[in-house]
Amino acid sequence: MRAYNFNAGPAAIPLPVLERAQKELVNFNNTGMSVMELSHRSKDYEEVHNKANSLLRELLGIPDTYEVLFLQGGASLQFSMIPMNFLQENKTAHFIMSGAWSEKALKEAKMFGETRILASSKEENYKHIPKDYSLADTEDGAYLHITSNNTIYGTQWNEYPTSSIPLIADMSSDILCKEIDVEKFSLIYAGAQKNLGPSGVTVVIAKKEFLETANENVPTILNYSTHVKNNSLYNTPPTFAIYMLSLVLEWVKEQGGVKKVQQINEEKAGAIYSAIDHSNGFYKAHATDDSRSLMNITFTLPNEELTKKFLQEAKERNFIGLAGHRSVGGCRASTYNAVPKEACEALASFMNEFRDNNK
Amino acid sequence: MRAYNFNAGPAAIPLPVLERAQKELVNFNNTGMSVMELSHRSKDYEEVHNKANSLLRELLGIPDTYEVLFLQGGASLQFSMIPMNFLQENKTAHFIMSGAWSEKALKEAKMFGETRILASSKEENYKHIPKDYSLADTEDGAYLHITSNNTIYGTQWNEYPTSSIPLIADMSSDILCKEIDVEKFSLIYAGAQKNLGPSGVTVVIAKKEFLETANENVPTILNYSTHVKNNSLYNTPPTFAIYMLSLVLEWVKEQGGVKKVQQINEEKAGAIYSAIDHSNGFYKAHATDDSRSLMNITFTLPNEELTKKFLQEAKERNFIGLAGHRSVGGCRASTYNAVPKEACEALASFMNEFRDNNK
Repeated sequence: MRAYNFNAGPAAIPLPVLERAQKELVNFNNTGMSVMELSHRSKDYEEVHNKANSLLRELLGIPDTYEVLFLQGGASLQFSMIPMNFLQENKTAHFIMSGAWSEKALKEAKMFGETRILASSKEENYKHIPKDYSLADTEDGAYLHITSNNTIYGTQWNEYPTSSIPLIADMSSDILCKEIDVEKFSLIYAGAQKNLGPSGVTVVIAKKEFLETANENVPTILNYSTHVKNNSLYNTPPTFAIYMLSLVLEWVKEQGGVKKVQQINEEKAGAIYSAIDHSNGFYKAHATDDSRSLMNITFTLPNEELTKKFLQEAKERNFIGLAGHRSVGGCRASTYNAVPKEACEALASFMNEFRDNNK
Repeated sequence: MRAYNFNAGPAAIPLPVLERAQKELVNFNNTGMSVMELSHRSKDYEEVHNKANSLLRELLGIPDTYEVLFLQGGASLQFSMIPMNFLQENKTAHFIMSGAWSEKALKEAKMFGETRILASSKEENYKHIPKDYSLADTEDGAYLHITSNNTIYGTQWNEYPTSSIPLIADMSSDILCKEIDVEKFSLIYAGAQKNLGPSGVTVVIAKKEFLETANENVPTILNYSTHVKNNSLYNTPPTFAIYMLSLVLEWVKEQGGVKKVQQINEEKAGAIYSAIDHSNGFYKAHATDDSRSLMNITFTLPNEELTKKFLQEAKERNFIGLAGHRSVGGCRASTYNAVPKEACEALASFMNEFRDNNK
């Protein structure tokens, strides 16, 4: 029986994608080889590689003035690569802090140059996206960095800042969950393991003009231009992860594209938020109303004992990954693109039932 | 029909490994999830992760005084991470140059400090492992770096240098192909995509004592100690690639371990070298006798036209990946652990037949 997978990442992958990967795992495209056994310089693999690139461009409406790269090392490596490449000596990297991953990005940038925090909601345990920031004083800015969705706290940016300096976003946990205007950003990055496929590949979408401003003397493999020049084939890419990414992107297209997926995500998250909002305070959302995430729904129960009981009964009913992160406590349901609506509705029903039995 | 896969990397994976991965791709260990969908913090995944670690330790006889890490970024990222962590300001990184990958490792090290070439066979198109080096003058050495097997040129170290400074080896293309004495090395690294599994994971085996000498102020994700402290789970690891690695290691164990695999590899390479050596000069080996690789067999034919014809007919007979690298020309057969003996014997037969028909 298929689990109701609410893992925060690595997370659910669409069942039809897994079934297709299974079917062709030993013999890809009649090559007599697995896709994992293909040379990354072969025509068969290059088709996979380029299909992933063009599907992502199509689905997100990425203009030709942007590069799409497939790298390794996750968002954690981007935290270092970005300042290494784009934080110039006499400039400042600006940050709006919305969670633990913003903190990690800031920490690494500090090793490479000047940084400044424009706003932070840390004092309120990151329960909302900071709104009280001014972009007036950022002329010395190399870039402005935001985290578009905060997996741990269950918050998400609705309206991105309109910045006069290059805007960079870590979209690891919400890329492709809703329509975005790519042209607002100079660089977007995302580890694949939430909405895009398995862990092991990182997507980078970057404005060509911005890429040209990069520092010199960056180690070859950590230099974005290396990967641009080589279509992400400078060294051996994680071929199987990119293959899975291409299948997931095809699946998103088959669903009707990002617009349609967004609508389904709103219904999915809506079902669970509704169970919270109609619980007479039994469940409490961690995120404030204006910052609620479509992807990670965080909530607490009246006490520790009920939380434990809830997680135990949920487990017995085949719900996986509902324990909250220790810094928030309570529960978290990650409702990434691949989590079926049916799973979210089943969870909402279970939440209602549990409340009725334990209020 | 299964191809005779002689790809240089990504390369053949054992068929039983692929079949097992296929079988459990949608439902791993009765979790109702794919192994790709498991949280990297879950018990089910941790068992996979730790099994890969302990099997590698068992198969290579890695002592407890060493760490085993699973990283991302391939050997190319190690080229930067090694000098970043271990090339101290007042010291020199020494290199013995045996091919294009040695050159890449040297190039990156130069960005971080002093380097010195102890020996090189570049003048002879790297057709042998340099032997004319002296380790007398290396007291200022941070480390000595070698490439244990040279995929492009088809050469391999037989006897490793006995160095008084830490010895570091890029074993990407021959790890696990034969028994080695790990204790000769302070650090061994290898991209998985030749002998260990799919691309996307890099194995690092490092002496704890050596790791303690690392520089400070290294970016978190590029700092080996980050990964040591977190059992390679600091950030989301490439879970599926590590799962495949664990299956490949299990397969090696089932074959009878590294000693047995080495014996089979000697028979496999022996069959092809024999076809070269008994061809009356029709096939010429690129590597000199004393430096021949067990893993990559490089040879040329009398002329360009015959080379093309050979590759064309080979393709028709289901042999994949036999074109040589442009810097050597001719042909190359990569006979990694997962390439069956039968495939090597079939290639040797075909080589004999082709020579008879075209001499």
